[in-house]
Amino acid sequence: MGTVRRRILECRPGRVDEKEIQVVRETPLTVRLNSRELVTLLCDGENFRELALGFLYNEGLLERETALGRVAVNEKTGEADVEAKVDERLLTAIHGKRLVTTGCGKGSVFYHVLDSVKAGRVQIAGDLRLPLSFLIEQGRVLAGRSETHRQTRGTHGAALLDRAGVVCFREDIGRHNALDKLAGWLLTERRDPAELALYTTGRVTSEVVLKAARLGTPIIASRAMPTELALQLAEQIGLTVVCALRGSSCLVVLGPERIDLEG
Amino acid sequence: MGTVRRRILECRPGRVDEKEIQVVRETPLTVRLNSRELVTLLCDGENFRELALGFLYNEGLLERETALGRVAVNEKTGEADVEAKVDERLLTAIHGKRLVTTGCGKGSVFYHVLDSVKAGRVQIAGDLRLPLSFLIEQGRVLAGRSETHRQTRGTHGAALLDRAGVVCFREDIGRHNALDKLAGWLLTERRDPAELALYTTGRVTSEVVLKAARLGTPIIASRAMPTELALQLAEQIGLTVVCALRGSSCLVVLGPERIDLEG
Repeated sequence: MGTVRRRILECRPGRVDEKEIQVVRETPLTVRLNSRELVTLLCDGENFRELALGFLYNEGLLERETALGRVAVNEKTGEADVEAKVDERLLTAIHGKRLVTTGCGKGSVFYHVLDSVKAGRVQIAGDLRLPLSFLIEQGRVLAGRSETHRQTRGTHGAALLDRAGVVCFREDIGRHNALDKLAGWLLTERRDPAELALYTTGRVTSEVVLKAARLGTPIIASRAMPTELALQLAEQIGLTVVCALRGSSCLVVLGPERIDLEG
Repeated sequence: MGTVRRRILECRPGRVDEKEIQVVRETPLTVRLNSRELVTLLCDGENFRELALGFLYNEGLLERETALGRVAVNEKTGEADVEAKVDERLLTAIHGKRLVTTGCGKGSVFYHVLDSVKAGRVQIAGDLRLPLSFLIEQGRVLAGRSETHRQTRGTHGAALLDRAGVVCFREDIGRHNALDKLAGWLLTERRDPAELALYTTGRVTSEVVLKAARLGTPIIASRAMPTELALQLAEQIGLTVVCALRGSSCLVVLGPERIDLEG
């Protein structure tokens, strides 16, 4: 991931030092679906393909079974053109609805996902159960994972975990982008999400739960804390929520039956 | 601000305690301008009026001189109806453009603001100059300011500072909402922004700089770090950027001429 060096002044009372810091890149990615411009995401300039596909998937415009055509990414101009057999009426309907959310990284999650949750049509399945000590240990591993975060303090990370450990780690300047990249990865890899846990460094707000619901992972673990609306949605769909996962302890907020507390 | 109590399990290896935590609320606010539904923001349910007005201002749909008509807020249903004399062509043009950004709290900042910056039409004025020790002290004050954040770890805060201290502090589940609330406050209070510094707990990404540019505050200070695009924009408009303001030190990243390093 790109970082840029900047000369700055480090200031304490009575003492000023000139110093060099590393700053994370931020760059636009314009996403078009079947030649239709949908959105410009601000991101770190990495994994454009995953980000574009995962964004479209999380917005409900692509499904796992959707036949993809050409996916053209131009890294220089920051453009992703995705061709896919999609329901053009859905595209029109969704494109007209905007929900600006709490997301670092991006903001639009669309009502029909929320509607599906409210209508009880989304229900998390899977008998994934993870030992508490494994989760805490993975929290420690993930906390030290990103060199870019260590250098810039400007990124959020997200990961998919199976029973053995991290299977995919992505980061970006926003927590939403990182989750979208995982969704894009999962679309291509076709791993069974019911066997995976989702980890994020960001706070668990409602749209993060909706993304987890789209992904189909039965457990979400976060370094940070949840909102109440997120927990209401998670409760409704049967998602296990673990928060404050900081490498030595955690809070099991919902769904402890998926966590082996003795393990 | 609303918090909700939740019973959870606090887990350390070999030890599980049942405990009660407080979780921050998250609730939708639908904003209509002249009966036109523009957006649904997810927020903490506080200061709906400021949030709606500040959002519209930061989106470029309201100006300081815009004549406001009726502003009706329904706290129960989460709706804000704003009547104002606006350029309907601009409303249509802006409404059609979506830029989803890195924002905790919300995401849409519109291109024409960015275009204005790029075209060199935005330039920060004002001879505000603050002593370093004052900034560091205010960072300490602001770090302890939010009871809700202390309880829930689920909010971002933002403030406007004059030479004497904090003149307005707002918080929300997203850093963008908090900044929009300040903009809404400033619209009503009509303080001169050239005499104020803007503080945020969140990272300084490009759209945060664009919000600062809209506000017209010559200094932005953040508890967190910037992105490179944010710094490029800030440099272009002559905005002073102070980061990592954590109560005992800070980094003056851009525009040290507005900081009295000896003071």
